[in-house]
Amino acid sequence: MNAKRFFTHSNDIKALNNNLLVEKMQSVFNPTEEEIAYVKKNIPVLHFPKGTLLLREGQISNKCYFNFQGLVRQYYLLDGEEKTTAFYMEGEGISSTVNNGNIPSRYYLECVEDCVLSVMTTEVEAEMFTRFPHFEKMCRVEVEKLLDDYKNVLADYMLSSPEQRYLNLVENKPELLYRVPQYQLASYIGVKPESLSRIRKRLASKNAGE
Amino acid sequence: MNAKRFFTHSNDIKALNNNLLVEKMQSVFNPTEEEIAYVKKNIPVLHFPKGTLLLREGQISNKCYFNFQGLVRQYYLLDGEEKTTAFYMEGEGISSTVNNGNIPSRYYLECVEDCVLSVMTTEVEAEMFTRFPHFEKMCRVEVEKLLDDYKNVLADYMLSSPEQRYLNLVENKPELLYRVPQYQLASYIGVKPESLSRIRKRLASKNAGE
Repeated sequence: MNAKRFFTHSNDIKALNNNLLVEKMQSVFNPTEEEIAYVKKNIPVLHFPKGTLLLREGQISNKCYFNFQGLVRQYYLLDGEEKTTAFYMEGEGISSTVNNGNIPSRYYLECVEDCVLSVMTTEVEAEMFTRFPHFEKMCRVEVEKLLDDYKNVLADYMLSSPEQRYLNLVENKPELLYRVPQYQLASYIGVKPESLSRIRKRLASKNAGE
Repeated sequence: MNAKRFFTHSNDIKALNNNLLVEKMQSVFNPTEEEIAYVKKNIPVLHFPKGTLLLREGQISNKCYFNFQGLVRQYYLLDGEEKTTAFYMEGEGISSTVNNGNIPSRYYLECVEDCVLSVMTTEVEAEMFTRFPHFEKMCRVEVEKLLDDYKNVLADYMLSSPEQRYLNLVENKPELLYRVPQYQLASYIGVKPESLSRIRKRLASKNAGE
């Protein structure tokens, strides 16, 4: 994997990120010094340059990530065409198939920008759950929240037209509009790039006419 | 809520269902007698007649369910039209917004058939996690599995045409085709009932021509 420390000559970024991890823990429970030390030691925060593939189709993953900086894209390769199904922004966890083990991934995870991610392996996760039961609570709460989010995303997708999906993006994740190439946005809302251009023109002329 | 014991004069069904709950626990850890007794006492298995609304739009839920028998549908009411976004079959958990508390539901949960469901309240869940940490593990494993399922469902939906979605149903959940009215199936795969008829005719003539 194409990964290196963000600043090899400085620990500034690393310390900041570990503080974020600690803050995240503290929002759910009161971590002990021992727990904090374990997290800082065993969950590295790494820099992944733009273009890094964190996961490939067919690969079995033993890692999950938390995004502190940058943007990660999930896509499928169908008949040579990339179909984007998710973007993970700052503050979001990226869990791939890590937890069900031994299932080859159907998709790719790619860093769309330079990223700073914490990396947790299945082994560290298992050890943490055994040594510090609080982590299990934190993980459960986090995964339940993610599940609720996914349910909403799925329902919104099923209930809306591509134009509505584009408007949802404008409202909820406006940064994506300039952080991501058009062809990725288009497949994310379920249309060809030409259709996305038409949607944008239609909305622009609608707004101009109001 | 329109719920009653399945057999008021017999414990047969109830015992069977509690055994299923116990088997579920045993697949993740070795429950103690105390844990088994707690589950049997505090997680009732109830009968809900066909048509029962387990949850309405705007309602705040404090319950989650596990489906032992029957079929539960999730739908949104948009401009007076029901849009079906999920079916929960036997062996599936139905968690609604129970875990994030205080968020009014955007959707309805309806028993499409007579159902036998276990019902767990937020209060029981919290007490179980405190008294028996094993439950937290069971719940985390279950929720992680659900999250993976949802990710796959979302990706499949985003990647496929209505015709492919119909074929996926035929392959993966063929019982739904005769357990559910056509208009519910149609909105579930994202089309009007007329389009579903056309899809079926097209596939039937394709098969006849092979």
